[in-house]
Amino acid sequence: MELPSKLLEKTVSYFESLPGVGRRTALRYTLELLKMNQEEAKRFGASITQLVDELGFCSICHNVSDEEVCQICAHPKRDKSTICVVEDLRDLLAVESTGQYYGVYHVLGGVISPLDGIGPSDLHIESLLGRTSDEECKEVIFALPATMEGDTTSFYLFKRLHDHTVTFTCLARGVAIGNELQYTDELTLGRSIQGRLPYENSMRSS
Amino acid sequence: MELPSKLLEKTVSYFESLPGVGRRTALRYTLELLKMNQEEAKRFGASITQLVDELGFCSICHNVSDEEVCQICAHPKRDKSTICVVEDLRDLLAVESTGQYYGVYHVLGGVISPLDGIGPSDLHIESLLGRTSDEECKEVIFALPATMEGDTTSFYLFKRLHDHTVTFTCLARGVAIGNELQYTDELTLGRSIQGRLPYENSMRSS
Repeated sequence: MELPSKLLEKTVSYFESLPGVGRRTALRYTLELLKMNQEEAKRFGASITQLVDELGFCSICHNVSDEEVCQICAHPKRDKSTICVVEDLRDLLAVESTGQYYGVYHVLGGVISPLDGIGPSDLHIESLLGRTSDEECKEVIFALPATMEGDTTSFYLFKRLHDHTVTFTCLARGVAIGNELQYTDELTLGRSIQGRLPYENSMRSS
Repeated sequence: MELPSKLLEKTVSYFESLPGVGRRTALRYTLELLKMNQEEAKRFGASITQLVDELGFCSICHNVSDEEVCQICAHPKRDKSTICVVEDLRDLLAVESTGQYYGVYHVLGGVISPLDGIGPSDLHIESLLGRTSDEECKEVIFALPATMEGDTTSFYLFKRLHDHTVTFTCLARGVAIGNELQYTDELTLGRSIQGRLPYENSMRSS
């Protein structure tokens, strides 16, 4: 699909570089911008530039933050002795939205993935080592994706950190709430059998 | 889902204003921007601003164009006596991609839709009147969407133009190629029976 304008082509190809956006969708987005109020559309463009220029990250946990230290790390009631290691902001928000976690986070900024050229040095691992060697730290929770890359990263972190005097935990794997057993994949169902719990526990948590 | 930064919130809400983009997708796009090369992401932002500021339209057919007159209107081999009226650039590109049309276009910039507050004065109708009153013009094809709004617009244009000495045609409605009759909706199937063609015609076109 050849577009009749180079300017249009440029914006469309930028939208196309976003995940899950094909050429048709990119064109749809771009034409929508042109239908918008002109000032509004310009502010859209400016907001991207400003975001990239000015967005700050928490100096402790690498969470996105407008301040030097993010709201979670700065909160007096959050338990600083428990650190939940997550891949990125979306996973942090997902854990926050459960309302079940009162500790602090460490945002790695990705997972180890040799195929994508992402090695340990591309992630915020050194600062995590610094935090876990602190006496205050008691537990590290690996809340990384349940994929090969996520598991590899958890294992790598465990190897690097295991001489620190902290407890390591990872998220429970099992049958999702509301799912039927017959539609659960074998690996997950197998893990949920291996990791079975005293029935009293399940009553307490529900 | 409350975001930990106002800058982030701003860009996410701009992405959210695009059609079909919810809050999660908007956040995904925004985080992808942050993963990009910083200069590249800034160029993305700048391209939107530049697009809105500088994008030009053909002075004849209102197609997007970097020149005063678009490539189609300026093409010496395009038949200027046939004008295909389309809603927007995407529909123009769809007709172009068939490779079956050799005339020129007129981009209305929308269809009449009282519910959305779009009336005839918001569309490029006056310039169409100017073009069809020209002696050179022989045929006007209404290639508007097969919706209530599209049909209303075609009818409105027909009423406004019918004293001009041109032929009016509209796209054929019928069973899509490759579709089974049992899955075709009744309206479409009904129209395809009313508009049945001599069998020889269908052989010629396939």
